Amino acid sequence: MDVSRLVELNAAYARAIDNEKFEEWPDFFLDPCLYKVTTADNVAQGFEAGVIYADSRGMLRDRVSSLRIANIYERQRYRHIVGLPVVLDEKDGTAETETPFLIVRIMRDGRMEVFATGCYRDKVRMDAANTPRFAERIVVCDGGRFDTLVAIPF
Amino acid sequence: MDVSRLVELNAAYARAIDNEKFEEWPDFFLDPCLYKVTTADNVAQGFEAGVIYADSRGMLRDRVSSLRIANIYERQRYRHIVGLPVVLDEKDGTAETETPFLIVRIMRDGRMEVFATGCYRDKVRMDAANTPRFAERIVVCDGGRFDTLVAIPF
Amino acid sequence: MDVSRLVELNAAYARAIDNEKFEEWPDFFLDPCLYKVTTADNVAQGFEAGVIYADSRGMLRDRVSSLRIANIYERQRYRHIVGLPVVLDEKDGTAETETPFLIVRIMRDGRMEVFATGCYRDKVRMDAANTPRFAERIVVCDGGRFDTLVAIPF
Repeated sequence: MDVSRLVELNAAYARAIDNEKFEEWPDFFLDPCLYKVTTADNVAQGFEAGVIYADSRGMLRDRVSSLRIANIYERQRYRHIVGLPVVLDEKDGTAETETPFLIVRIMRDGRMEVFATGCYRDKVRMDAANTPRFAERIVVCDGGRFDTLVAIPF
Repeated sequence: MDVSRLVELNAAYARAIDNEKFEEWPDFFLDPCLYKVTTADNVAQGFEAGVIYADSRGMLRDRVSSLRIANIYERQRYRHIVGLPVVLDEKDGTAETETPFLIVRIMRDGRMEVFATGCYRDKVRMDAANTPRFAERIVVCDGGRFDTLVAIPF
Repeated sequence: MDVSRLVELNAAYARAIDNEKFEEWPDFFLDPCLYKVTTADNVAQGFEAGVIYADSRGMLRDRVSSLRIANIYERQRYRHIVGLPVVLDEKDGTAETETPFLIVRIMRDGRMEVFATGCYRDKVRMDAANTPRFAERIVVCDGGRFDTLVAIPF
């Protein structure tokens, strides 16, 4: 897979979230899929379970719906800065990649803080319309102090 | 427009500012142009006015001159980390793009803080010499606590 | 040199360090090489000496070994976000480039802070197997409050 397609996918994904177009988020995945948020510590200790988990677009959509309800009183914004994908492997049309990210949280009063850093471990495949989508996106956070109930998509 | 030209333009722009070659900054724009710094809140509320505004290279140059004077006593440095451009549209030789950014401020004593995050909303066109330049650069900051009088170019 | 090769090199370099595969780090350099960590202030004042210095893979390997010993009690993680390379010059097969970076430090308790920002000033050449490697990597940090004895590779 051409790296520029991976870059394009990552840039569009981050833009959708930062522009708070959460409803577009499930469409970046194939259906079924695997979306998991976990921590580097969990991964190092061999824990399979993540703190957030979904395996279909439907589950991703449910997550967005609850987020919309929970977030009524929240006013922070987020900004993703996504690094460059490293392609680790490619076979049978699936590219396995790792891409670092940094998320800044912007509070209502203008304060900003590094909210999360980590790396996306992805499996990307073309869909029927030749658009790259995530078969898998494992979000491995370096730290872990987020509230999983109201966390925006990573 | 080839995305690699957009990437190149963004990288050179950030480098000029971070290396404090402010005098090179106006040359990244066409003349006339539109340069505006505003906030996501302003944009959401439909306010057209930005907190910083220029519509010609001359105005950009004036800004740099006042900055040089005002900054005599300032000693912070800045570092831009610019993400990947998403091309939204392209017609009549003008590419419309959105590119996220993060700016870190480095104090004299070595302290560092996230100074601004946001996204560049650009219109890019080739000039007569086939070099890409900004016809428009709207800098939409996620937060807004900067002093517009002495702010470096974003 | 194709910019995509430079991007690839930078992405793989950052990944090796953030995944704590420090033993792979010397292989990103030619042998002999020049690796130096310095500060923007030092460079501005014309000081040639850096705070960290190595001119062969052997010296880089020594550094990794001491790091492994010193770090027994350290538990922080690091995350590099590397920007896009600006190619300044290219002759006789050597590309001279500048690439901005941001490093976040993640503490054991989940706290995160901007650890360093700066820019890589590199000379990159293909090795015998046509893989791009660093003939020189001068790491120019914007600030400077790190402990050079235990600092991970930048």
